[in-house]
Amino acid sequence: MIGSPAPVDTGFRTLASLAEASGATLVGDGAVRVCRVGTLEHAREGSIAFLANPKYAPQLAATRASAVIVSPADAGRTALPRLVSDRPYLVYARIAGLLHPAAQPPAGVHPSAVVDPGARLGEGVSVGPQATVGADAVLGDGVIVGPGAHVGRGARIGERTRLDARAVVYDGCVLGTDVLVCAGAVIGADGFGLAEDGERWLRVPQVGRVVVGDRCEIGANTTIDRGAIDDTVIEDDVKLDNQIQIAHNCRIGAGTAIAGCVGIAGSTRIGRRCRIGGAAMIAGHLSIPDGTTLGGATVVLSTIDEPGMYNGAWPVQRYTDWRRTAARLRRLDALVARIAALEKAFRGDADRTAGQ
Amino acid sequence: MIGSPAPVDTGFRTLASLAEASGATLVGDGAVRVCRVGTLEHAREGSIAFLANPKYAPQLAATRASAVIVSPADAGRTALPRLVSDRPYLVYARIAGLLHPAAQPPAGVHPSAVVDPGARLGEGVSVGPQATVGADAVLGDGVIVGPGAHVGRGARIGERTRLDARAVVYDGCVLGTDVLVCAGAVIGADGFGLAEDGERWLRVPQVGRVVVGDRCEIGANTTIDRGAIDDTVIEDDVKLDNQIQIAHNCRIGAGTAIAGCVGIAGSTRIGRRCRIGGAAMIAGHLSIPDGTTLGGATVVLSTIDEPGMYNGAWPVQRYTDWRRTAARLRRLDALVARIAALEKAFRGDADRTAGQ
Amino acid sequence: MIGSPAPVDTGFRTLASLAEASGATLVGDGAVRVCRVGTLEHAREGSIAFLANPKYAPQLAATRASAVIVSPADAGRTALPRLVSDRPYLVYARIAGLLHPAAQPPAGVHPSAVVDPGARLGEGVSVGPQATVGADAVLGDGVIVGPGAHVGRGARIGERTRLDARAVVYDGCVLGTDVLVCAGAVIGADGFGLAEDGERWLRVPQVGRVVVGDRCEIGANTTIDRGAIDDTVIEDDVKLDNQIQIAHNCRIGAGTAIAGCVGIAGSTRIGRRCRIGGAAMIAGHLSIPDGTTLGGATVVLSTIDEPGMYNGAWPVQRYTDWRRTAARLRRLDALVARIAALEKAFRGDADRTAGQ
Repeated sequence: MIGSPAPVDTGFRTLASLAEASGATLVGDGAVRVCRVGTLEHAREGSIAFLANPKYAPQLAATRASAVIVSPADAGRTALPRLVSDRPYLVYARIAGLLHPAAQPPAGVHPSAVVDPGARLGEGVSVGPQATVGADAVLGDGVIVGPGAHVGRGARIGERTRLDARAVVYDGCVLGTDVLVCAGAVIGADGFGLAEDGERWLRVPQVGRVVVGDRCEIGANTTIDRGAIDDTVIEDDVKLDNQIQIAHNCRIGAGTAIAGCVGIAGSTRIGRRCRIGGAAMIAGHLSIPDGTTLGGATVVLSTIDEPGMYNGAWPVQRYTDWRRTAARLRRLDALVARIAALEKAFRGDADRTAGQ
Repeated sequence: MIGSPAPVDTGFRTLASLAEASGATLVGDGAVRVCRVGTLEHAREGSIAFLANPKYAPQLAATRASAVIVSPADAGRTALPRLVSDRPYLVYARIAGLLHPAAQPPAGVHPSAVVDPGARLGEGVSVGPQATVGADAVLGDGVIVGPGAHVGRGARIGERTRLDARAVVYDGCVLGTDVLVCAGAVIGADGFGLAEDGERWLRVPQVGRVVVGDRCEIGANTTIDRGAIDDTVIEDDVKLDNQIQIAHNCRIGAGTAIAGCVGIAGSTRIGRRCRIGGAAMIAGHLSIPDGTTLGGATVVLSTIDEPGMYNGAWPVQRYTDWRRTAARLRRLDALVARIAALEKAFRGDADRTAGQ
Repeated sequence: MIGSPAPVDTGFRTLASLAEASGATLVGDGAVRVCRVGTLEHAREGSIAFLANPKYAPQLAATRASAVIVSPADAGRTALPRLVSDRPYLVYARIAGLLHPAAQPPAGVHPSAVVDPGARLGEGVSVGPQATVGADAVLGDGVIVGPGAHVGRGARIGERTRLDARAVVYDGCVLGTDVLVCAGAVIGADGFGLAEDGERWLRVPQVGRVVVGDRCEIGANTTIDRGAIDDTVIEDDVKLDNQIQIAHNCRIGAGTAIAGCVGIAGSTRIGRRCRIGGAAMIAGHLSIPDGTTLGGATVVLSTIDEPGMYNGAWPVQRYTDWRRTAARLRRLDALVARIAALEKAFRGDADRTAGQ
């Protein structure tokens, strides 16, 4: 089998067994059997759907799902067999994991893969076709190296970590256990280090590594540069979406989740349990405290001292309105001067009036 | 031959034959022969150039092209043999396609490629060196799988679709006919689905597919995530430039063109025949109507109800001006208060004056 | 050895020899030996650290480095053996290059690589495992083609240029000498050329090349499209960070450095020795003069005539403040009208008062 792992169906489970496995309360016929998840809108017989966002509540009445996952508040709105929980999305996630576990490619090294004799492979490691594994690389038990993925010399990959097709881990980088690296991600390329040498740039060697913690997720075509001297560090449970750029020497705190297209410049420190919205851009050499939320497309140019929710994005406007607003904005200074002049004039006038 | 297809020259054609093939009107010597396209500025003998943008009109007089493509309004401004059309750029595109068809790699599976015996390949399929094709994948007639490209298990690729070097199509994804997928593009990686489970994130299986219509174009290093439950859908004739991120569950309407570096968050619906400028960022769970134009770098955070042209980007300023403007902007609220105070004071004063 | 080159240690050097090699002045014991660079904070015995940013001056006292590189102003603040220079970062860069030269993979073609018999390889060329080199490609002396990298048909790669894992150079593109192309970069994909043909888009063949000068650096997953007719040109000494998109027909002037996540639309010309901050977005068909600096996340929608430092980004705000500011901004026009009304009213009133 040659595959980039995707979820597979594993047969039917009773609702009663899913209630027990997911920690939800069963209401209705526990003998009902489901084999897949579905959306309320498109589920068919044998599917289990969920309602977590009130926006989709109207779909509950018409769904053809065999069972649903709902909050206590919604439990009375359907006659279907159901799992009830305060956290229906979490219950859904658990059940989806049971019904659709990731496909497991066969253990072993594909004959077309090139694994350096000096690499050490744990039990049950799968190295896919056209993959390359460098000298002194260490792959923990159950590691999956996808088709055409590359593990550099001396890199260490923790147990059960999965590299999808064409993912690249440069020499010497370290990934924890249960990490997911999606296709095209690049971990450990040289950071952008340049010194001015007269009229030219001199390239500065990047001798640090990238060190990624356990249970991290690194999205498709995301890039994380190796440290200039010390390491670039991605702590445990950090979740990175696609097309993210993390420059050299950054540290991303445990549990932080970053949406797609975000850029983080060099030596910046993001705290723990932050949530960074898509396309946010964060300058270098600054820090963001634990628990901060950044709205989408927000630009951060200096350190944030207090956690909270921060934003910064021009509100979308019709083209002609935007043109006018932008022109006004550029003259904001003159506007302030006009107001100050009015204030001064009015005060003077008021004085004169009062003095009459 | 090992190649990532690029246009090739195919020999000379007479201007008369090109007029006929492109639907343009011939003016001048139809026996003139050309073998390649060129810009007005750099064309040499044997080249055909075009004028569509008035900005380049001054170059018409000095061009060394053997023939030109012009609008009726410009037809009198040159003595060169010419093709005249209301739509000179379209005529140019047709002629460029005739003179420079994409190179066709040889049919067959390169000995270094790894194609699962369970995959089904149509007539004339070309699988390049180091490519990988998974079990149960179906490649239609004339499909080109470039060097090192990957087609996942159970994926279906329509006739004449071309995957360039290192492109990745994950398991189960579906591409239509005549699609172009440029190098490094990733179709079908897991969407960014996370459920909070106490202090940790629980990964939510992504069981949907990506379904791409006919004649779509997917730029280099662009990423399109598979659906969480239902599919992510790219309708027919959608054109995506490079470095675009399309998150899970999105639907992009037929004929929409999206420029580079755009990010579209999950479950958003873009209408048909939209034009999205480069680096626009569109939040999740919203919709944009058919025929909408978004300016470059515009951030969309909520649904747009009416089609039109929308923008939103800070106008570039000198550093010191920007610093001052930004500071003013942050105090815009106080400014409004000052105006209100003036208005109130003035009214009061006017009342007093009037009451004298 | 299978490796994506990363810096290696090369043994000890005396401080005296490093002073001579780097052009710095030795103060203290020149017989001290170091074998690696380190940060002031984490250096250990055998490391040499540097102080260039005053922010880190407090770390000088406590460092465990064996030697340090400092400016004349800081030379008196430490008793450690030291190298003194007006440009401590440049001295650091030179020494880091001596202590940590890039690893050199062995010369020769790996048995798993596929090199077309029509390709021409210079002396000492290294073609890594799973790499592909097309017909008529020319690789200069000392070129390194990393694991799984692809060089298209007829491409020319200058001496000592290094392509990292999975980098892609399309057919016919040209790279100069001593260029670094990081993993996942794509050079020469089709530009985004579309002509409207009734209800559909007609793809416009992209017949130009990408031509990259000497000593350029192209970051991980960066994309540079081939020209539509003439070439896309990256002049000598241009340094491109990760995830940058450069569209067809652009010209980037010599010595310009561009930080990550920048997008440059088609046919734009960037001058020489410019510095473009991360995530800046530059529209098409415009020009930016030599020596311009653009701040991070700045959006440029029209030509800049004079060099200077330009910016444009919404200042980050607390969510509730931003909401209010954004709402105010959208009504900036009305605000200006209120001020004008006040001015008019006040003048009228002042006239009346004066006329009493």
